[in-house]
Formats: sequence, C-alpha cells, structure tokens
Amino acid sequence: MTKDDLHTPALIVDLEAFESNLTKMASHVRERGLGFRPHAKTHKCPEIARAQIAAGAQGICTAKLSEAEVFAEHGIRGLLITTAVIGKRKIERALRLAAAAPDTIFVVDHEENARELSEAALAEKTRLDVALDLYVGNRTGITPGQPAVELAQKIARMPGLTFQGLQAYAGHASHTVTFAKRREVSQEAMGKAVETRCLLEKAGFEVHLLSGGSTGTYNIDTEIDGITELQPGSFIFMDVDYARIGSQDGSEKYTDFASALTVLTTVVSRPEPRKAIVDAGLKAFSTDKPWAPEAKNVTGLKYFFAGDEHGRIDFSEAERELKVGDRLEFVIPHCDPSVNLYDRLYAVRGDKVEAVWTIAARGRSQ
Amino acid sequence: MTKDDLHTPALIVDLEAFESNLTKMASHVRERGLGFRPHAKTHKCPEIARAQIAAGAQGICTAKLSEAEVFAEHGIRGLLITTAVIGKRKIERALRLAAAAPDTIFVVDHEENARELSEAALAEKTRLDVALDLYVGNRTGITPGQPAVELAQKIARMPGLTFQGLQAYAGHASHTVTFAKRREVSQEAMGKAVETRCLLEKAGFEVHLLSGGSTGTYNIDTEIDGITELQPGSFIFMDVDYARIGSQDGSEKYTDFASALTVLTTVVSRPEPRKAIVDAGLKAFSTDKPWAPEAKNVTGLKYFFAGDEHGRIDFSEAERELKVGDRLEFVIPHCDPSVNLYDRLYAVRGDKVEAVWTIAARGRSQ
Repeated sequence: MTKDDLHTPALIVDLEAFESNLTKMASHVRERGLGFRPHAKTHKCPEIARAQIAAGAQGICTAKLSEAEVFAEHGIRGLLITTAVIGKRKIERALRLAAAAPDTIFVVDHEENARELSEAALAEKTRLDVALDLYVGNRTGITPGQPAVELAQKIARMPGLTFQGLQAYAGHASHTVTFAKRREVSQEAMGKAVETRCLLEKAGFEVHLLSGGSTGTYNIDTEIDGITELQPGSFIFMDVDYARIGSQDGSEKYTDFASALTVLTTVVSRPEPRKAIVDAGLKAFSTDKPWAPEAKNVTGLKYFFAGDEHGRIDFSEAERELKVGDRLEFVIPHCDPSVNLYDRLYAVRGDKVEAVWTIAARGRSQ
Repeated sequence: MTKDDLHTPALIVDLEAFESNLTKMASHVRERGLGFRPHAKTHKCPEIARAQIAAGAQGICTAKLSEAEVFAEHGIRGLLITTAVIGKRKIERALRLAAAAPDTIFVVDHEENARELSEAALAEKTRLDVALDLYVGNRTGITPGQPAVELAQKIARMPGLTFQGLQAYAGHASHTVTFAKRREVSQEAMGKAVETRCLLEKAGFEVHLLSGGSTGTYNIDTEIDGITELQPGSFIFMDVDYARIGSQDGSEKYTDFASALTVLTTVVSRPEPRKAIVDAGLKAFSTDKPWAPEAKNVTGLKYFFAGDEHGRIDFSEAERELKVGDRLEFVIPHCDPSVNLYDRLYAVRGDKVEAVWTIAARGRSQ
C-alpha cells in the first residue's frame, strides 16, 4: 500500500522523522541519567507507546484515567496519570486499573480526594502509589512549598496511599517563544518544584519522583538538579505551533525535532480560478492555535478553514495550478487535539505505508 | 441511570428541547409543502436519523461518503451526499453504497468526475442519481447559470448517470447576524439557484430536486419559490454560535430553536482562590468559533480553555464557591465538530438518562 491508496483525509506519520525524534529525545534524557516517561495524550496509540518503551522509556504518562485503561489493556506498564481522579465512580475504576497495572502512579492535589482514594484502596486491602501534583504552571495542582509539604504529611498518614514524589508540569513554559525566555520561565517554575522537593526531604520524605518537562523545555529541564524524569509529548510528531518557539542557537525555527505528522487531503472542487477546496476542515484539524495548516512540499499555498469538512486553498502564489483529484499534505497546527480526531495513523516511509496504527485511546477523555 | 452516574466529560442532549426543535422544523417545512432532508453531519447518529425520519424527513444529508456508508448500514435510506466523491477508490465505494441504498443521490460539480462516475456505474450495469452542486456560497460547486446548464447537458449524455436536480448550500448566509441581513444574503444566493433551475427547465430538464437551506435560513428559504427541500443540521442541538444570529422579531438572541446540547464536566482542581479547573478542554469542545463554552443554569462563571484536557473557570462573579467534585454543564460553542469528538450521546429527560446513543459516524470524514 502506498499513500496514493489512502482514502482522504488521512493522518500520516513519517517514520523516518518519528524515529529520529524518538531516538534524539531518548538519548538526550538517558545521557543525563534521567528517567523518560513520554506523555501519551499526544498519540493515544499503543504501538507508539511500545516504540517509546523500546527506546528506553520506563512507561508513559496519560492525561486521563480512561486513556490509562486503554494502554493498560494493551499491556503498557509504568503509567503515570497526570490529572487527579475525582469522584467515587472514577476511583472505583482507578482501583481496578491498579489491580491490573500495580505500578500505576496517580496524582493528587486535594486532601479530601486523597482520603477517598486511600479509603477505597484500604477497602480493597491494597495501596495506591501517588504523587503530589504541584501548581507550577497554569492548570492543576497544590501550591508548591509549605502547602504541598502539609498535604504530603497528611498523605503519609493515609494507610491506603504510598507517597512517591512530585509531578510538576509548567504548561506556560513549553510554548514560550525564544529559548532564552523559555529557559527563564521554566527555571522559575521548576525551581518551585525542586524547592518543594528539598522541603519534603528535610521533613523526612523520600522523593523518588519529580516528573516534569515538555518538548519545548526538554534541554532546559534536564539541566535542573532534582528533576528525576521527563514527560514530553509532542516531540515525536511536532506541529506548526511548536516549530515557532525558537531554538537554543537563537534561530526563529525550533529545529530540535523534525515535522513528522501530516494530514493527506484531496482537492474536491475548483469553484474559482485561483481557489481549490480540499476535503479536510474543522473535523480534520484542530483549530485552537492561530496558525493554519501548512502545505508540505508545495510553496505558495494558503489554507483557510471552510467549515466542518472543507478547507479553501488560495493558490494564486503557487508554482502550479491545482486540479480536482490532486492530493495535498498539510502539517498540523497543533498535534494532540488533531490526532484525537482520527481512528488510525498511517505510518509511512517515503510513499510506502509500512503500518496502520490504531489510535486506541482516541476520545478517551473520561 | 441519572446524570450523576455519568463519567465526565460527557456529551448530553436534552430530549425535551431536542424533540421540540425537531417537531418545530418538521412542521414548518411540511406546512409549506416542502421536503425535509436534515443534515446528519451535525449528529452522525443513526438513532437521531431515525427520529428525523419518524418526524417526516424523507431521508438525510451526509457531508461525506463514509458517513453515508454508516447510515446505510444502519438502514437509513434517502441519502444525499453533499460533497462530490472524487477518485477511483472512492467511486468504487460509491457504487457499493448505491447497490445497497439505490435512492442515494451524489453531487457533482466537475465534468471529469461525472464521467468517471458514469463509467463506473456503466461497468456495474447500473445508473447513479446525481445532483449538480451549485457554488452559491463559499465552498464547493459549479458556477450557477450557464456553466451549470452546460454541465447538466453533458451529464444528460452520460449513460451511467441520472440527473435529478440541484444542490445549493449558502454557508455564508446561515450565520449572518440579524435576520434582515441574513434574508438578503440568502435570497441573493438561493436566487442564483432558482434562476439556474429555470434555465435548466427552459433547456428541457426536469428538476426534481433543489436542496438547500440551513438552521439560520429555514424560515427565509421556505418562502423562496423553486426550492424543493430543506437540509438544516444544527437546529436539533443549537449552540452558542447559532444563538447569536438574531431572530426575525429583531431580538439579538436567536430563539427559534432551544439549546439542547451540553457537555457535563467535573471540577478536578482548585489551584487558586477564585479559579477552578474542569476536566474538559480542547478534546471536549471544538474551538473554531470565538465564543467560549457557556455554563448552563449557573451565572457568573467564565470558561477559558486550559489545554487539551482542561478548562479554567473564573468564578469570581458567581453566586457560590466551586469545589473539587462539583459538576458543571456547558453549552457548546459549535455543535457539529464538538459532537464529532464523542462516541456516545447521553439522551436525558430532566436528570434521568433515557438512552445512550452511539455517534456511529464519528470520525467518518473520508
């Protein structure tokens, strides 16, 4: 099977770029003696998780419990679920997951939730591994420093929980433009996590885990003492958004990882002289970033969203006319939510489709 | 099962609002003697298609071939596929679909594609019903008027095709704000379609079909002579975007149809005094409109997207504090691409979950 055989829109990963990205990140982390637990919310794909583990990852992160359930069913272990599991019904599922995959780590940032987890574990005569989720970014977590230490002390007295350490995700750092500014933001955020780690150790805790980092900050965070593992996600695929954050050498383009993910489309209509309509719109690309999909290997094309199912291509500055039936490949503005729109990922080398990977945890946001 | 039993984020349709929307649209169209072929790209759900047919629809529209395949498998007939089927591989599928569901209508806007369809049909010793897709909006189609008549004449000479009529979708009209402006835009766009119909009839064609219209223009387009059927989609659910287009009586809110679709979320973290994080982000709501999700039944909450899996709620102006574990329901900014993120739709009456409907054509964009 070649790319020509695919029914469009089709989600495509270029294996050469993907493998080189994975090798580069895994080597970088390994050479610095750190752990590697890539974030699977990016790909939601058991085959990719297996490739990551084969490359040296000790497991994967998932954003949600339902994602972790899918990966566990596919035999993936070393799971860290990066959002707290809230409410009786989800806690019941967490216990079932932990029974199947006992090295799963859950995060907590709230005393009552920790207590509910502990009681549920006790009722099952088991213990759950937990990490404190620290608020070092702009999403979830407990305030670093003293509030975190106090919550850890409460957790230490909960007989159903085993305190493993910390999670600190600085989402605002990952996409900060220019390397210099990004380093500043990440060092400040992760500094709070390291400080909390020190306070915990002074208070007598063993901190086995301080998990953080992202595709944008991987080479910043590995230089910060006290972080034990990196959890980057997008580096395997990359996207228009990440390509704009700037490299360490000062160049505007972020070239550390190669663009590996595209959507293959077909021109389905030519309603105006310099305009073509492709069969990929709001249901084929996520739209949360201000950037449009960017044509791969063709210059002078401009993509505009034209509804749920269509994109409008202005080719007035292109080198050639577009015809109905032409196929165009586009780099994705933001990889994670776009991958979540597809059931399958076509893994290609050159034009050959080497494998069809199931995005088994697609839609698993619960 | 009640709403409290649902694992969040969960997509919910309020049956009372849904049923009243469906009855209202079906009656409006029936009373004016027009056909009703609602667009199923909105819901992608066989149970809803069946409800629409029970309410008087003669079939449904789908945007893509793969959607139509799913509905045909579920026994739905009267399919109109509103995007041209391009390329040898898809045409093979179109022939298989037409064998299973012979009253399916395909659209064409391009001579070469029509010829390929005709040849493929001939090779199978069959004929395909086709409608000309007219460019009266901002997406696909052949230029109305003489170019359309010429293409129809070529189609009439293609032995594998039966010309059925016209499709004219004016996407730019549907969301035009204020009723008066919307009427102007729709009348101009659909006027071109009606004019093309007249030219075709003068040229000796029987035009059985002129399909068009939308949730925003239903009460404009039913007053235009020459349109044979309406193909609105969003009216069953509604969303923040459609609620803003204004009513015929001049009021800012569009109240013709009731808000029926929400996402149920849970507060999973309280990182700051007046801020809460819910478990629904970019993978739970589409982001193609400038509006945020709007809290239902609670005033003073502001939702901000906070990444793939989270939303940040500012409740500084709310009547009460939000706690971890609280459940909040949000009206969706844009229904179609949001529904496409879910596998299931929970149909509720009050707090009771009456049915769980499978969004069987979710992700079917091919």
